[in-house]
Amino acid sequence: MKPLILITNDDGADAPGISVLTRLMKQIGDVVVVAPDGPRSGQSNALTVSAPIRYKKLHEEEGFLSYSCTGTPTDCVKLALNQIVPRRPDLLVSGINHGSNAAINVIYSGTMGAVLEGCENDILSIGFSINSHSLSVDFSYFEPYILQITREALFNGLPHYVCLNVNAPEGEIKEVKVARQCDGKWVKEYEKRIDPHGREYFWLTGHFHNNEPDAQDTDEWVVAHGGVAIVPVSIDMTSHSSIGSVGKWKLTID
Amino acid sequence: MKPLILITNDDGADAPGISVLTRLMKQIGDVVVVAPDGPRSGQSNALTVSAPIRYKKLHEEEGFLSYSCTGTPTDCVKLALNQIVPRRPDLLVSGINHGSNAAINVIYSGTMGAVLEGCENDILSIGFSINSHSLSVDFSYFEPYILQITREALFNGLPHYVCLNVNAPEGEIKEVKVARQCDGKWVKEYEKRIDPHGREYFWLTGHFHNNEPDAQDTDEWVVAHGGVAIVPVSIDMTSHSSIGSVGKWKLTID
Repeated sequence: MKPLILITNDDGADAPGISVLTRLMKQIGDVVVVAPDGPRSGQSNALTVSAPIRYKKLHEEEGFLSYSCTGTPTDCVKLALNQIVPRRPDLLVSGINHGSNAAINVIYSGTMGAVLEGCENDILSIGFSINSHSLSVDFSYFEPYILQITREALFNGLPHYVCLNVNAPEGEIKEVKVARQCDGKWVKEYEKRIDPHGREYFWLTGHFHNNEPDAQDTDEWVVAHGGVAIVPVSIDMTSHSSIGSVGKWKLTID
Repeated sequence: MKPLILITNDDGADAPGISVLTRLMKQIGDVVVVAPDGPRSGQSNALTVSAPIRYKKLHEEEGFLSYSCTGTPTDCVKLALNQIVPRRPDLLVSGINHGSNAAINVIYSGTMGAVLEGCENDILSIGFSINSHSLSVDFSYFEPYILQITREALFNGLPHYVCLNVNAPEGEIKEVKVARQCDGKWVKEYEKRIDPHGREYFWLTGHFHNNEPDAQDTDEWVVAHGGVAIVPVSIDMTSHSSIGSVGKWKLTID
């Protein structure tokens, strides 16, 4: 039996990136797409809790089903697994995101939110992103790597609670490298404007500050130097190395 | 100079939990509250990207300022740090959340989203949650532990990229223990209903399945047995132990 592949994203069911990813995954298995009905960038693992959600079928053919959902990327994965897929998927892929999800973006990304959700459900899960926000970005250099990484993931598997965050540069690809999440933060994040009634409002903007620009084993470095970066991501967020030191604090109440 | 403490939450500026946390933090330092203008549970690290956000002052007195913000908990922290606080905070506390954020809830929680955001900005950050969704839950047993943990955190500090996820049981507290994130997942997550027009819709529900119910070093176990669980959380999500094995995959394109 062919593998069953669940596909989602955070740019919406009609984004170019998810159509490329769908075309590629049809070469590997049967495909079910459950994607948001519009853009959900920066939605992290957000859940829709104070309203119900819905889904509707967009397309059906042999070995391929696609749906749009009114929720977040994480909602899409939850609803797909609980209500939509005909059997347990062998793989979840999310993307191809229009924009990098390297470094700390892993915690904000709706693309990666969906991947973490698949991982929690013990499904082999991979997020693919390209370092360009252009809707007309050329995915063709990235495509053979997406196929190769996906096939190797299906062949080798991943440990429990581990998934992959794969980021590609725009244009030609010089190498593919397993990397770690770069240390950094976003800075200068708001642009203040005044509305026609004289009241302030704030748009999110800003840029990424790399705390370790010379480290060559980070996802930021690999992508900036023309490589595809693969970061294995754990959804166990415990800082195991800190348990001992915090355990020495005086925590009892006299 | 007194420490400057930034407070936020995901239950909204008028929730009982944040008023208790504010009263406690006034015993330790100067306080600035920047909290959502309504409930934002399950908002994870979601960002408001397709609309601007605003904030307004709610209250001002010596050593205390409070504001509400139209964004998510993560937006609140970003806007506070970029536009509102008079100087760099020495501490960020989030909560007290009405509901447990133990185990995998760390990736969905807006309370913890705010904590991860403070941590990314190199601010000592702690999330406090209580294992009850009741708005009239009694926080009094938890209060001395919140003060003690906060004072110890200010005294000892935490490593870069590490913050704390603190969860308390309802009622009397038997112990306080440094723990790790419990391994588990949410199951049976949707309730299907039919609207008056005959169309399906889905409410998020479900319950947590503990994959390791007998492990005594998890946050779930500690809270279930009447203890306050402190989990040190890392925002470096790299599975460092998987870099070697994934690095052996055949990733090059011939």
